[in-house]
Amino acid sequence: MTKTSPAKTNSGRFFEDYAVGDVLQHAVPRTVSGGERALYHALYPSRHALYSSDEFARRSGLPKSPLDDWAAFHLVFGKTVPDVSLNAVANLGYGEGRWLLPVYPGDTLRAVSEVIGVKQNSNGKTGVVWVRSRGFNQRDDCVLEYVRWVMLRKRDVEASAPVTVIPDLAKVLRADQLVIPAGLDFSNYDFNLAGEPHRWGDYQVGEKIDHVDGVTIEEAEHMLATRLWQNTAKVHFDATARPDGTRLIYGGHVISLARALSFNGLANAQMIVGLNGGAHANPCVSGMTVRAWSEVLDKAETSAPGVGAIRLRLVATSGAAPFALKGEDGKYLPGVLLDLDYWALMPL
Amino acid sequence: MTKTSPAKTNSGRFFEDYAVGDVLQHAVPRTVSGGERALYHALYPSRHALYSSDEFARRSGLPKSPLDDWAAFHLVFGKTVPDVSLNAVANLGYGEGRWLLPVYPGDTLRAVSEVIGVKQNSNGKTGVVWVRSRGFNQRDDCVLEYVRWVMLRKRDVEASAPVTVIPDLAKVLRADQLVIPAGLDFSNYDFNLAGEPHRWGDYQVGEKIDHVDGVTIEEAEHMLATRLWQNTAKVHFDATARPDGTRLIYGGHVISLARALSFNGLANAQMIVGLNGGAHANPCVSGMTVRAWSEVLDKAETSAPGVGAIRLRLVATSGAAPFALKGEDGKYLPGVLLDLDYWALMPL
Amino acid sequence: MTKTSPAKTNSGRFFEDYAVGDVLQHAVPRTVSGGERALYHALYPSRHALYSSDEFARRSGLPKSPLDDWAAFHLVFGKTVPDVSLNAVANLGYGEGRWLLPVYPGDTLRAVSEVIGVKQNSNGKTGVVWVRSRGFNQRDDCVLEYVRWVMLRKRDVEASAPVTVIPDLAKVLRADQLVIPAGLDFSNYDFNLAGEPHRWGDYQVGEKIDHVDGVTIEEAEHMLATRLWQNTAKVHFDATARPDGTRLIYGGHVISLARALSFNGLANAQMIVGLNGGAHANPCVSGMTVRAWSEVLDKAETSAPGVGAIRLRLVATSGAAPFALKGEDGKYLPGVLLDLDYWALMPL
Repeated sequence: MTKTSPAKTNSGRFFEDYAVGDVLQHAVPRTVSGGERALYHALYPSRHALYSSDEFARRSGLPKSPLDDWAAFHLVFGKTVPDVSLNAVANLGYGEGRWLLPVYPGDTLRAVSEVIGVKQNSNGKTGVVWVRSRGFNQRDDCVLEYVRWVMLRKRDVEASAPVTVIPDLAKVLRADQLVIPAGLDFSNYDFNLAGEPHRWGDYQVGEKIDHVDGVTIEEAEHMLATRLWQNTAKVHFDATARPDGTRLIYGGHVISLARALSFNGLANAQMIVGLNGGAHANPCVSGMTVRAWSEVLDKAETSAPGVGAIRLRLVATSGAAPFALKGEDGKYLPGVLLDLDYWALMPL
Repeated sequence: MTKTSPAKTNSGRFFEDYAVGDVLQHAVPRTVSGGERALYHALYPSRHALYSSDEFARRSGLPKSPLDDWAAFHLVFGKTVPDVSLNAVANLGYGEGRWLLPVYPGDTLRAVSEVIGVKQNSNGKTGVVWVRSRGFNQRDDCVLEYVRWVMLRKRDVEASAPVTVIPDLAKVLRADQLVIPAGLDFSNYDFNLAGEPHRWGDYQVGEKIDHVDGVTIEEAEHMLATRLWQNTAKVHFDATARPDGTRLIYGGHVISLARALSFNGLANAQMIVGLNGGAHANPCVSGMTVRAWSEVLDKAETSAPGVGAIRLRLVATSGAAPFALKGEDGKYLPGVLLDLDYWALMPL
Repeated sequence: MTKTSPAKTNSGRFFEDYAVGDVLQHAVPRTVSGGERALYHALYPSRHALYSSDEFARRSGLPKSPLDDWAAFHLVFGKTVPDVSLNAVANLGYGEGRWLLPVYPGDTLRAVSEVIGVKQNSNGKTGVVWVRSRGFNQRDDCVLEYVRWVMLRKRDVEASAPVTVIPDLAKVLRADQLVIPAGLDFSNYDFNLAGEPHRWGDYQVGEKIDHVDGVTIEEAEHMLATRLWQNTAKVHFDATARPDGTRLIYGGHVISLARALSFNGLANAQMIVGLNGGAHANPCVSGMTVRAWSEVLDKAETSAPGVGAIRLRLVATSGAAPFALKGEDGKYLPGVLLDLDYWALMPL
């Protein structure tokens, strides 16, 4: 007699498995090394000097070059996937994201999420779950936190709807909510080594920048990237999982690609400290040539020497003209892949 | 006049080049670092916590997180290829494999093989060679040993047959032959961080587990993986080497992929300590979507605190139903790629 | 009103933007780690023992295993691209290249180029620019220098032609111009571990070696490789940049691939110390199966114990017969991709 064990494998959670206040201890802590840094540079056309050179980082007041902020985000995000989004119909949004401490080679990250909202949809078949996820290092310092909300199917459509709780999230983080890494100092910033002369004062609110370059995505690349962060959602890897045989590219891959492309025009937007919001406007699949443009949304001073904050919209496109975003109906145009709203730090 | 030098290149050995007792000192020692670890995570959906987190490894009594056991195997295997299997018609089997010491970043590995068996086939054109291969670190400690046997062509079909020597190999390693890494202690094992609650006592002999997930393989990925271990057998890299233009995927790539997929249901089968046998049942080529299932073959106690041993069959498939293995003729079904028999260590 | 900022992005320099004596401080310094080393091994079938094993390197008198010489070259080259070759019509040649110091994990490299020649072409639309590029480590020691010349378009065809300056470059570096790494000593060289028995004395000037193996190139691989060195020239990444939808493979990828293939027959040509010249004879695109052959051009003694110098021609091909190079018209045959002339160090 064969005893099979469906119960031993994780088939993911459904909408009714979440209750406000639940705390999810995510599995598989991860120690990072120079290997993750090198791979990040192989996977993305990443050139921000602070993340490329230990010397540049030291001149900026840090002990050495940290892991790219988005790599830290992906590491934490990947851990949340088996508990949060394995059965997600859609990743609806991000908010209140803050990078609290740089992550360095040698650090070990784990992740914890708290359920902060639930709302059953009117169709009775799906619902939205809000979680606040946090990444911690080996000293139990929180290095990163963000909220995301996903649409999940119900396991049992007859299950009763929970009391609706919609968290009150800030549309935009105020500049005084951003955490500047201890010691950061751009007073001796070397603009030649950084690659562009444009400083904080050179950018104006409303200004838009076409980042010019494009990268055509291959299957092997996005799978290597997504696996590196131990994100194992099957739609990214299993060509038989979607009816048309395509693999859906992890949204974070598009973020990292667009961020790296934004070097050309924003080489000095060095450290990312806040994520105000983000939408994966349309799915991305291999073969697309991804381009990016940015818009300056706001600027703010900080208390760190020589350091200003800049709020940027980062838009990734495939086939859409630069600066095109939404149609007359208020919906994203078909060629828009990503619309991200974040705070970065820049030399004054 | 042009002087060309076929003699300077390695065209591989043939059957009659092996005699029982020969010792082959394999070339190209290799120092591993965090880079190899990071690449392993990018190449495979690898999530076993002991190989992901230095903190988890320390809590388990090890100094830090070791290189994945299969990465150590591939490193040693790759070194043997130029001397053992460059002209192999087929890689027939593995046996008596033992991991003797964890491999850590900073270690340098070299490999040595001893010929332990030869048998000319009745067709007079080919023969089988058995070698016992060992990997050594920079302190000349043996970290790994295994036997494999390959079918090789004869250079000269007229060459006389050697005296047949067939080594007497154990079908299965006894649990008391397994080497538990010094200090290993699962008494404080954190099942939350490991990702699953199932402990040694929860698995029953005869139990089968469908690991659910699938990964579609790309050419670039298996070539990166195979090259990383300096395995340069041309069938893996040269699309002109096989009549149909496909590249044959290194069997070890399938092993690592299946092992990583087995996390879903066997997250706590942490360390691999014994390889009883293995067959690459059918060739694997890019485009295949690989899935895996396991069967519990045996269980045993160990002397290490909190540590049990579990013997598992790991089967990789492409297009075959879970738990299907062989047809009525006793032959592997066409969709079966790998049938592996190994011992792992698991928390009690 | 939308304010767009074409001025903030780098659209590259044109011929008239260069004047002899100009010094270009290239951006984006880079710290290397074991990650870059591991990736190099994943990207190329690289097996030279000195670059694979810390122990082998120590036995050869070095403190540990350095980054592959070509990886160091690509790192420096990549930094020069935005300032030198973003608008290049063609990369015409290399010369006077010398590796002056090994690059080790932990080193941070930056690059500086000096314009040493300009010549407007007779068509009035393009010109040739010669630059001498140098890589420096964090101690401001020069680790590498080479000259390359590129053909660039003029921004304004009406711009007046500069005074022609053609640098007087050595066709071939003399052996006494080569810099042997301090401490290098091949007296205790282990030919077994290196993989081949052939020593300096076994090679004769005029001898040719067919390196036998072939590698079929995938898009993902060459893009990973090229990005790793932060070379962001769009022709390598953007399938829409060229009329036929192909991506042009970075010439340095072909160099590294051919060098790695040359292990089979030249396993003991360990360290590369001089680059006499090189031509990318025909473009390389994905799907090509690259092979390589070498010719011994010269030999010289050195002052280091047990170390000889060997001058080699390395030719990469796709579809051309071994040893075929140029047609009767003196032009490279269509299947020739690379013709490189370099000095390496070999045990006596």
